[in-house]
Amino acid sequence: MDTPDLEIVAAGGLIHRRWFLAQTAGAAGLVLLRAQPALLAAQQDVPPWMKAPGQPLRPYGERSPHEAPVQRIVNSVPGTTGSGSARTPLESLEGMITPNSLHFERSHSGIPEIPPDQHRLLIHGLVDRPLTFDLAALSRYPLASRIHFIECSGNSRGLYAAQPAQSSAGALHGLVSCSEWTGVPVGTLLQEAGVRPNGRWLLAEGADAAAMSRSVPIDKAFDDALIAIYQNGERLRPENGYPMRLLLPGWEGNTNVKWLRRLKVTEAPVMTKDETSKYTDSLPDGRALQFTFPMGVKSVITSPSGGLKMQGPGLYQISGVAWSGAGRVRRVDVSADGGKTWAPADIPGPVLPKALTRFRMAWRWDGGPAVLISRAVDETSAVQPSRKAFLDAHGAAHSYHFHGMQSWGVSADGEVRNVYV
Amino acid sequence: MDTPDLEIVAAGGLIHRRWFLAQTAGAAGLVLLRAQPALLAAQQDVPPWMKAPGQPLRPYGERSPHEAPVQRIVNSVPGTTGSGSARTPLESLEGMITPNSLHFERSHSGIPEIPPDQHRLLIHGLVDRPLTFDLAALSRYPLASRIHFIECSGNSRGLYAAQPAQSSAGALHGLVSCSEWTGVPVGTLLQEAGVRPNGRWLLAEGADAAAMSRSVPIDKAFDDALIAIYQNGERLRPENGYPMRLLLPGWEGNTNVKWLRRLKVTEAPVMTKDETSKYTDSLPDGRALQFTFPMGVKSVITSPSGGLKMQGPGLYQISGVAWSGAGRVRRVDVSADGGKTWAPADIPGPVLPKALTRFRMAWRWDGGPAVLISRAVDETSAVQPSRKAFLDAHGAAHSYHFHGMQSWGVSADGEVRNVYV
Repeated sequence: MDTPDLEIVAAGGLIHRRWFLAQTAGAAGLVLLRAQPALLAAQQDVPPWMKAPGQPLRPYGERSPHEAPVQRIVNSVPGTTGSGSARTPLESLEGMITPNSLHFERSHSGIPEIPPDQHRLLIHGLVDRPLTFDLAALSRYPLASRIHFIECSGNSRGLYAAQPAQSSAGALHGLVSCSEWTGVPVGTLLQEAGVRPNGRWLLAEGADAAAMSRSVPIDKAFDDALIAIYQNGERLRPENGYPMRLLLPGWEGNTNVKWLRRLKVTEAPVMTKDETSKYTDSLPDGRALQFTFPMGVKSVITSPSGGLKMQGPGLYQISGVAWSGAGRVRRVDVSADGGKTWAPADIPGPVLPKALTRFRMAWRWDGGPAVLISRAVDETSAVQPSRKAFLDAHGAAHSYHFHGMQSWGVSADGEVRNVYV
Repeated sequence: MDTPDLEIVAAGGLIHRRWFLAQTAGAAGLVLLRAQPALLAAQQDVPPWMKAPGQPLRPYGERSPHEAPVQRIVNSVPGTTGSGSARTPLESLEGMITPNSLHFERSHSGIPEIPPDQHRLLIHGLVDRPLTFDLAALSRYPLASRIHFIECSGNSRGLYAAQPAQSSAGALHGLVSCSEWTGVPVGTLLQEAGVRPNGRWLLAEGADAAAMSRSVPIDKAFDDALIAIYQNGERLRPENGYPMRLLLPGWEGNTNVKWLRRLKVTEAPVMTKDETSKYTDSLPDGRALQFTFPMGVKSVITSPSGGLKMQGPGLYQISGVAWSGAGRVRRVDVSADGGKTWAPADIPGPVLPKALTRFRMAWRWDGGPAVLISRAVDETSAVQPSRKAFLDAHGAAHSYHFHGMQSWGVSADGEVRNVYV
């Protein structure tokens, strides 16, 4: 059987997925493992696990023990166990949804164990009617469900380093995850409390030992903010704010205050420790940007990616995720030659605003050195910048909001490494 | 503070959600728990879980111990532990995604423990090139991700009973769940094997001890079938076919063969035990329908629902799920007076084909007896029938594919019960 010629639409062996499938319709371009007569006989043997009844039904399922190596990448601050972050292993996942057990987390003083019936959300400050809500009361309000990413503004910080860190896609970029969140629109609750004319900001405070607090413009609350109480169908996980969190779609992760205990309506930002000593963007001239909320347009190739090993020359599927805090992803371009040439990836959808969006593209690796890069464009026409362009604009003292392009170098021996181009 | 008048668009106190929100914009119609000065002071006290660092970061998360009562409803066949079903507790979930640990399962001889590197998928029969695929080979093919429900054709069987069973929404209707599935289109693999002109059906066989097997028309394989290898981002769960299952969107659950070990291309259906002794639809005249694959248009109100207790007169949100094996849900109507009058529910979307679709509607319960019913309409204009109309058409000997309407009776004491109207 011959391997047919495949249309190549860009240098580096990139093959647009639609052409790829059209080619396979009449031929057998993708045969990776052809059955032999001996294999056929072996396959029709009955494997051991078909010879006796299997395991019992369970009220709450667990994954296969063979999947145990797929874990979040935990980094605790020295001297603590619960302060730090746990990153999503992006290279082991597919699709757009992050399973709850692998959703990233970032905590400033551990994960509080909150009895849900003792938790209260207080809305106060510049309102006509201060209100408190327990979970039962909140659950009677009109709910909304939406699929959104959350990204820590410190995600991809490793790409600021002068030398490329040798890490996996998850270790470098895994402070982003995507879930279906269900909750009460914040605007509904604020309308109920009655915001006074001079109320322009909200202070959101968490019920953790850090009392993590951020100031948020009230317009965002009336736009698309939720008090989230469900995550992918079930109640929030403890590390994601059980029993309730603020969800500010597209905005930097730590404004999505977890274990939310109060929203205070104020005239101006409160200047909490979490928005003065941290989560500000240092500029080359020594000043700092504050309240830089939306996350930039971004993409990461998750397969192949850092630390993975190619199985030899041949056809591969490039797969990755793109997202933007400004709305929908419009396009993702992929290069296999370090950015000299580009071709549009397939985005099968659904493409939802402020949600991870999966892109894929076929690639025939010829066995030589290659550099894979992805570049996302969102519906506002914002284009993901190169790493160099991003650093030139923001300076090396900056350490949040990195959304430059990731380059994965593939060497002739099949190793995949983080490289700077 | 006064409770404002709310627009009522149907008898029974149903309130269209958009009107509902409009009403709250200028007033305070929804105040359920008003904060008092004493409460305010208490709220600003620091709760115990803010006084010490919280729990450590974890590589694979778990839910709060307070959520442990939310479980699948397990029914094992007497004398077995792994044969039977575990239903999704629909009344405890929100949104469209079912978390993996709560996805329903139906197993015929327990859940096999399969080492993924030893599992093979064989494609043989009327093909030019018999092929076997291991998981690594399959993972190099072009993947597709789609959000789809799976529903066991035995779901809602309890509604065939002459007297209404007193069970929860999950116990009655929980053999339906919805995930984002990622896998390889079956058509791609069949093209590669080269289907011979007389190949019209597939035999799909599972690697469990029951060797669960179904015959499937090959056109479905070329339409939208997948070999699914990921579920909500991570690898399939054991009880959902780890490491690979057949996914036939919209078709009765057991054709979505789990632990898939072979697809044999045949001229005609093979008449396996699983499509002759079971999964056929007995008709009143003694004959039986066979190969009734698509699941009908259907909806269930999950809140309030059987076994739940109303908290007293006032505003509630009716919430439920609708789906159709034929495509998208177009509309869901809700009645609060046993079907005399109806109003369209809010369907905030995304509305995806062959996926659970959440609908919601505000309802002001006046404290008197009420009967809540939902009725779904799909994009083919198929309308969910009443229970009586469904039984009249199909006869009492029928025991699969029930998709009549569910009626929840609310009594003056606030109990919610399955009732027949």
